[in-house]
Amino acid sequence: MKKSKWIWNYGDFELYHTQKMMNRREVRGMYYPPMWRVDGVRQNLFVYKIATLESSEKMRVYSNGGDVSVTVNGVRFDPKKPITLDVGKNFIKVQTYKPTGLPALYIDGDTFASDESWSVGSYGGLDCHVGTNENFVSRSDDPEVFPFKYKKISPVACENVRGGTLFDFGRETFGLLHIENKKPDRRGVCPVVYGESREEALDKKNAVITDVFDKSLIGQTYPSRACRYVFVADKDVSLTLDYEYLPLKKRGQFKTTDKKLNKILDVCAYTLHLNTRECFLDGIKRDRWVWGGDAYQSFFVNYYLFNDFDSVRRTVISLLGGEPFTQFTNTIPDYTFLIIKGVYEYYLHSGDRDFLEFVYNKFESIFRLIDKRLDSRGFFVGGRGDWIFVDWADTAKSGIVCAEQVALCAAYSSAAKCAAALGHDGGVYEKKAEKLRELINRFFWREELGAYVDCIDRDDRVNVVTRHANIWALLFDVADGRQVKKIAECVIKNDKIPAITTPYFEYFELDAMCRIGEYKYVVDMIRSYWGGMIDLGATTIWEEYDPKIENVVDHYAMYGAKYGKSLCHAWGASPIYLFGRYALGVYPTGVGYSTFSVEPRDIGVGDFSGRVPIGEDGGYVDVSFDGEKFTISTNRDGGTLIYGGKKIALSRGEKTEILA
Amino acid sequence: MKKSKWIWNYGDFELYHTQKMMNRREVRGMYYPPMWRVDGVRQNLFVYKIATLESSEKMRVYSNGGDVSVTVNGVRFDPKKPITLDVGKNFIKVQTYKPTGLPALYIDGDTFASDESWSVGSYGGLDCHVGTNENFVSRSDDPEVFPFKYKKISPVACENVRGGTLFDFGRETFGLLHIENKKPDRRGVCPVVYGESREEALDKKNAVITDVFDKSLIGQTYPSRACRYVFVADKDVSLTLDYEYLPLKKRGQFKTTDKKLNKILDVCAYTLHLNTRECFLDGIKRDRWVWGGDAYQSFFVNYYLFNDFDSVRRTVISLLGGEPFTQFTNTIPDYTFLIIKGVYEYYLHSGDRDFLEFVYNKFESIFRLIDKRLDSRGFFVGGRGDWIFVDWADTAKSGIVCAEQVALCAAYSSAAKCAAALGHDGGVYEKKAEKLRELINRFFWREELGAYVDCIDRDDRVNVVTRHANIWALLFDVADGRQVKKIAECVIKNDKIPAITTPYFEYFELDAMCRIGEYKYVVDMIRSYWGGMIDLGATTIWEEYDPKIENVVDHYAMYGAKYGKSLCHAWGASPIYLFGRYALGVYPTGVGYSTFSVEPRDIGVGDFSGRVPIGEDGGYVDVSFDGEKFTISTNRDGGTLIYGGKKIALSRGEKTEILA
Repeated sequence: MKKSKWIWNYGDFELYHTQKMMNRREVRGMYYPPMWRVDGVRQNLFVYKIATLESSEKMRVYSNGGDVSVTVNGVRFDPKKPITLDVGKNFIKVQTYKPTGLPALYIDGDTFASDESWSVGSYGGLDCHVGTNENFVSRSDDPEVFPFKYKKISPVACENVRGGTLFDFGRETFGLLHIENKKPDRRGVCPVVYGESREEALDKKNAVITDVFDKSLIGQTYPSRACRYVFVADKDVSLTLDYEYLPLKKRGQFKTTDKKLNKILDVCAYTLHLNTRECFLDGIKRDRWVWGGDAYQSFFVNYYLFNDFDSVRRTVISLLGGEPFTQFTNTIPDYTFLIIKGVYEYYLHSGDRDFLEFVYNKFESIFRLIDKRLDSRGFFVGGRGDWIFVDWADTAKSGIVCAEQVALCAAYSSAAKCAAALGHDGGVYEKKAEKLRELINRFFWREELGAYVDCIDRDDRVNVVTRHANIWALLFDVADGRQVKKIAECVIKNDKIPAITTPYFEYFELDAMCRIGEYKYVVDMIRSYWGGMIDLGATTIWEEYDPKIENVVDHYAMYGAKYGKSLCHAWGASPIYLFGRYALGVYPTGVGYSTFSVEPRDIGVGDFSGRVPIGEDGGYVDVSFDGEKFTISTNRDGGTLIYGGKKIALSRGEKTEILA
Repeated sequence: MKKSKWIWNYGDFELYHTQKMMNRREVRGMYYPPMWRVDGVRQNLFVYKIATLESSEKMRVYSNGGDVSVTVNGVRFDPKKPITLDVGKNFIKVQTYKPTGLPALYIDGDTFASDESWSVGSYGGLDCHVGTNENFVSRSDDPEVFPFKYKKISPVACENVRGGTLFDFGRETFGLLHIENKKPDRRGVCPVVYGESREEALDKKNAVITDVFDKSLIGQTYPSRACRYVFVADKDVSLTLDYEYLPLKKRGQFKTTDKKLNKILDVCAYTLHLNTRECFLDGIKRDRWVWGGDAYQSFFVNYYLFNDFDSVRRTVISLLGGEPFTQFTNTIPDYTFLIIKGVYEYYLHSGDRDFLEFVYNKFESIFRLIDKRLDSRGFFVGGRGDWIFVDWADTAKSGIVCAEQVALCAAYSSAAKCAAALGHDGGVYEKKAEKLRELINRFFWREELGAYVDCIDRDDRVNVVTRHANIWALLFDVADGRQVKKIAECVIKNDKIPAITTPYFEYFELDAMCRIGEYKYVVDMIRSYWGGMIDLGATTIWEEYDPKIENVVDHYAMYGAKYGKSLCHAWGASPIYLFGRYALGVYPTGVGYSTFSVEPRDIGVGDFSGRVPIGEDGGYVDVSFDGEKFTISTNRDGGTLIYGGKKIALSRGEKTEILA
């Protein structure tokens, strides 16, 4: 018999697990619900397949607990028994209803083994093929259990302090704590305090994650959580942790002769790995949610590290949710725009046409909401409940905001590209993009400032220049070549324009710096900003870092909470992307890396070597630099080396050298 | 403290219970899934209330199992403890997440006791007040249990036959069977066969509902099902049934001196009562589903019998489902059109503005699907997956079908009326209605035939006249006064036009007959058609009845199955509506019966008396006829007696007499 897989409504596996994840945030023992709509799955599943058999065969249908119905050519069969299919055309419909959880089916058979060749009956929507996942291919697999792996780890140190025990796992980690009681059968309970920092673990009142240990028990296991330190207010306990992680392979790397830089990149990789769970989280302690802008950046780091497409898909599905689209991603319009941009970029990296089609079908509903927010000229203006974010910086938060228009323009362009890739008519998106680009340049660009201004309908912002709008205009192709040069001089390299303060927007700024050739600035920033955290003992990259803060504990505060800052924040992993994209210089030019460029650069970190994973199945490009020449090799066709104004076709399996 | 109620997302109580109901159909022990999309609930619930307190008060929040979050003016409180609210403005948000079932909240308090004064946060949709139900007002009530009542009943006869026992409950019923084993500790199993007829119960192979009794058990209880007879293939058992029903009060009645007619009406009332469950079912055995057209008729019978608004609401919510609307009701466009018409009529009967607003907000999505099915002129043409039904009769099932346009025109008009009632701009619906009415009259009306033709784009149907389109055109105000007279003569009273064969369309025909004053025809039909079934021993009204069938068992066949016909079918209850609407002559003219007409008629059944329930809370109109005069009394203001060309204002609490 052919190998079968569990099958479900395309996208529902992702919604099922991310809905649970979004509802898992807690603060000091209390449930902390998401502030936006979180969608779940359909409890009815209807799949079908039509095939013509040349010889009779058997099939058997299993569900994961739901009632099942099977018809073959309109005739109802007992789903509890093997079904014999006759020669000729067989139109098989299987339905299941499971009032809770994720309805799924598993069908043993040859022609009719359950896999992507089955279609989902969408009841009037657009039928597509069923959803599957390579982790659920055996009948005993349970699609309702997320495919994490576990590894038991022990603290590297423990210390008796303040009448209890402080355990240190040596670095930030994530998992299920087990506390063993050395003196069970006592009475009473005592606090358990998780800390990303030693200070947090010892500060029960202000720590974000706390729990309770019952001294009458032999031991106790807790839900999976983030920590480096754990304080138990008892001296007679020991503990271990089941490290919970996705078994992702580090497919990309970048090494230099500079140990500090290598260390930074290792910490970046570990930070992203911890945050790569049901979705790309923003931070594993706070807030354990997925946010569009943060995730957008994780996609890029991921392409140069794990190149795991499943994680991108899950994240996009969670962020766009079900229909109708009534609310922007995390309530933030710019996040929705970035995710739409990210969808096309995902397609370029993965070549995953099925997913593109699935998401494209949601665009009608998404752009209907966007249309409701446009003024008569076509500018995006915020509506009720919209959070115009851009950055935690002094950018306009209401009115006709430049950065918002630029991001929307990128979303229109990306939607047009998605349409073109699928063979649909994307003319409406193309026109909207062109019109908005023209409007932005007409109303926001100020030649005398060499910059786009922040906001055009608020007197206090009409002459204000921020880095944000200009960086996005540069990166998202709203500015032309001449404008890019102006922006570089008048904004990006202009110290009078307020500096970027968040790693979130630092990602975009460093990307822009690389685009305009300012590699030294980028490398210096990575060494000082990222290196600065590591000098302070960071084992993962923080949500924010201010070198001016003197007292270590003051680093941990954010959002008005003493330990409100996430010390393991995905957006800090961007150096991996920057080195892969601009030093190794590898990026796709054709769908699914069918063609790609390798544009290596001496960015001033000395000798380096590295690998970029490309395409779906183990493709890579290796690039090394020894101070004199670059050496490139790849196991894929379609590569072009670009260096010093020359373009050289790369041959699969052969080394290509070029003098620097 | 103020009385609290369980609260949930408005509409979710209804979706939760009707989703389960829709998935409860079975055939010979196998699950038989719905053929359309069935929507469930949101697992996240977010409610809020803002109020200004003049003195401090306490509140306490309970969920039905989900995690809870409470903030007061943005400050998070422990939801497990009582919360003290200070004087002044309090903005309270409560959220819960329950991954299965129906998330619900119950809040003890004074100002903040949970009730309809709380709003649902819709995450970008339109906020509305929370859903409640008068059956769930105590903290120990469980909103996940549908509020059926139960009464133990015993068979009226039992008979040893074919090696087993046949039990007869004396009439069609519905409930949970308990089988008691007189000789437990035996081995093996034996069949249990449910029958609406004796023949079905004794025909295990062809019976629709079957089960298995385990002889080793003392007894066994089964899921709730329809039956009159039960056959157990064992001699040593006895049984009872927990009759499962909604405790609805018969608020309307109609009595004549003709016992046969009274009996027919009793059977009609019992038939509707059995079918009034989570929704108005079509039939309690087969198929235990809710269908738009069937339900539309049940609404009208209900207004003259139970006047239960909850049942209408549940049915409409189930039939329109969640958004986006991707598929017509039961896949049938005319059913969607009827339900939209039914929504305005519900508002007219109930005055329930909240529900109207809730449903009106779905219209945009519904009419978007309809728009996709319009040709360039504006005619409705079927799309993929649409079932152009109209009736089980020889009417066109594809092309530009007259009846379909007429029903759509009625839907447009009703949507316009809904908009007007809510103060919204319904101009677009009004225009569409006018345009379509003009198109229908231009393209379908044939003056020389005095009728609308069936279908205009199929050569085989272009000259065909059916009763269906003409009856709807008459009832739904597409035909003008002159056309109505023509239709009456040339179609309705024309024996050459094929007769209506289903009680479904007979409802519309008899309604039309009453409109044109053909009361004798109506009464004769009720006596012969309905009376005919009862003469054959029917204890509930059948799905269909053909007086020409000679062999009793042949009555039970339908849809190619020996016992495929439902013997308890809601659409058979229409005489209750017809007598209430045309003999008692009571109908609303203002919202919620704020004004109403009483237009009594001597319809040729001799003396009669009856009551029509009006409005929300115990209002009624009593009408009696003694052969010489009509006597009318009502406990509500707003009534107008219309008789013999005169209009007389009715006085609440006083009898008004008028000579016939």
